[in-house]
Amino acid sequence: MDVSATPESGEVHKRTHEKRDGRKLYLYGWAAHDLPVTAELEAASPPRPHLRWHPLRGEWVAYASHRQERTFKPPAEFCPLCPVPEGGFPGEIPFADFEIAVFENRFPAFHPDAPPPPLDLPLRGGTATGQCEVVVYSAEHGGSLAVLPPERLALLVHVWADRYRDLLSRDAVAFVMPFENRGEEVGVTLHHPHGQIYAFPFVPPVVERMAAQFRDAPVLADMRQSMGEAYDIAGNEHAVAFVPPCARFPSEVWVMPRRFHPGPWTFSDEEAFSFGALLGETVARLDALYGRPMPYICCLYAAPKGEDGHFHFHVQFLPFLRTADRLKYLAGCEQGAGTFLVDALPEQMAARLREVTP
Amino acid sequence: MDVSATPESGEVHKRTHEKRDGRKLYLYGWAAHDLPVTAELEAASPPRPHLRWHPLRGEWVAYASHRQERTFKPPAEFCPLCPVPEGGFPGEIPFADFEIAVFENRFPAFHPDAPPPPLDLPLRGGTATGQCEVVVYSAEHGGSLAVLPPERLALLVHVWADRYRDLLSRDAVAFVMPFENRGEEVGVTLHHPHGQIYAFPFVPPVVERMAAQFRDAPVLADMRQSMGEAYDIAGNEHAVAFVPPCARFPSEVWVMPRRFHPGPWTFSDEEAFSFGALLGETVARLDALYGRPMPYICCLYAAPKGEDGHFHFHVQFLPFLRTADRLKYLAGCEQGAGTFLVDALPEQMAARLREVTP
Repeated sequence: MDVSATPESGEVHKRTHEKRDGRKLYLYGWAAHDLPVTAELEAASPPRPHLRWHPLRGEWVAYASHRQERTFKPPAEFCPLCPVPEGGFPGEIPFADFEIAVFENRFPAFHPDAPPPPLDLPLRGGTATGQCEVVVYSAEHGGSLAVLPPERLALLVHVWADRYRDLLSRDAVAFVMPFENRGEEVGVTLHHPHGQIYAFPFVPPVVERMAAQFRDAPVLADMRQSMGEAYDIAGNEHAVAFVPPCARFPSEVWVMPRRFHPGPWTFSDEEAFSFGALLGETVARLDALYGRPMPYICCLYAAPKGEDGHFHFHVQFLPFLRTADRLKYLAGCEQGAGTFLVDALPEQMAARLREVTP
Repeated sequence: MDVSATPESGEVHKRTHEKRDGRKLYLYGWAAHDLPVTAELEAASPPRPHLRWHPLRGEWVAYASHRQERTFKPPAEFCPLCPVPEGGFPGEIPFADFEIAVFENRFPAFHPDAPPPPLDLPLRGGTATGQCEVVVYSAEHGGSLAVLPPERLALLVHVWADRYRDLLSRDAVAFVMPFENRGEEVGVTLHHPHGQIYAFPFVPPVVERMAAQFRDAPVLADMRQSMGEAYDIAGNEHAVAFVPPCARFPSEVWVMPRRFHPGPWTFSDEEAFSFGALLGETVARLDALYGRPMPYICCLYAAPKGEDGHFHFHVQFLPFLRTADRLKYLAGCEQGAGTFLVDALPEQMAARLREVTP
């Protein structure tokens, strides 16, 4: 077991624990973590994901059929992300308390030791090398980014930076994406506040298109300059949150640092604090919009490997409510053609999100 | 009013009716339609959609804020797609009966007379020229493609062919996509069996990528050849239905003609009949899989303008159930990265769909 502070901050402590099935668990905190190990969940079976090339779309599809074969059936009310007290029901994080915990996903779509694809595929196959991690924001079962204290949000930004550094240093990894799916409307069944991190062995299609645009021009900085402040919903010293004038989702919000960064790994401590605080305020504003927790997909877009010079790091929140009780559906035009239809004008949504009381 | 048979088939009758707001309504049938006009819905307001360029994705987003401003509020139990008897509540199709009806959408995302985009946009705008149509498969309020008789399914294929010819003949149209959203899980609120047709002023992103692959190689024919029959779920003289080995959705099925066609407009009458019948059987098999109507997105992919020589026409069914009671959600990895994660192996789903009794 290894207890150490990351050299960059001098303040963030990181403890590494290896589960009995070899999966790594990292405990991050402003305080050093020295609690004893309690009860750990049964070992995960070795994952066997693989990739297939989609010849009409020109992209990889990831198959993880082991996800169907889960034998793991905890009690219905059991949360595998909660801390485990002495004598408690086993969990993924076998400690009585923690600040932020990161562990390798039990059912990953990408894995460092993924086997080669089946030999009898009628199209090109690929090895799903990479990693999938779960990031647990808090030992509390309730809550969300909207209510975490600013110190915890700042810690989360440092955790992401550390995971980026580790995962991007691996030869097989081309792109790393932390993200959060929130709400039953997005398919989330675990309500304990958490996100995920996927380390891909290729640059996925959405990011590849984005990288191509950034290679051509500083498209995000250019857009910010043309927008003025009419689309801003909140901001602080080092970060700004706004509805993009080309929003595809109702109440879509992007959060970005005011200075250029390829990813949070180049943030100063002050920038990390500002950025974390603004993420929290953004979720609080989205929750206030309809007086209920907003279901969303939130993605961190940092530079793929080798694109550090021009890819502008930012976060996109894609909310799924178009009114207080109506979902935005992605149907024929969006899924089948790839063109989004939007009822709400971004400038009107920006005004509402700016004026709402979080 | 114009009653005429299409020259190609010598059998399909088409009657054109202009609504009081100028929107066109076409009545197609194997029999000539000569019923009198009954009660028509109030006039639609002029639509004002526009386009904005998304600089990070390099694609158009369509804004149709007039869709929010709907004043039209029919009784809750009222179906605007049902036929209207003498003295009945007004509807979109003011006739007491019909076989297949096509009319211009009341709230279109694309319109022949779309105005130029607002002048004060902080990014590139575009005019949303094009057309959106609704295709009503039957005068019956219930039912689906799975239960329509083969003559009606063949008529539907002829209707699509006629709409393709009309819409693709317009200078402003680059691509035409008939599609169907089915089920409340996909956001459908009108249960009367119907589909839609969008005529785009640009080639949308999914189709542009597909067209680029077809320019390189006959990717679909190549895939069929490598697959053998292991992935087929049904077939007849002129058409085949199969689970693609690169399926992104659970129980995804593609239907294609056995000979190369750029679109249904080059089908013989026999091919149209075969193709329609196989679409019906495919939906019946999808419905039988879990013993309930399968929610899906179904898209027709025919050649964009100018790509007739190599773009292989086919239909994709994208079903949203991954088990009898669990939805497939498109979350962070699918929406945010563009990479699909799939639990079910295509070859296993093909076997199940082949063996199920429709």
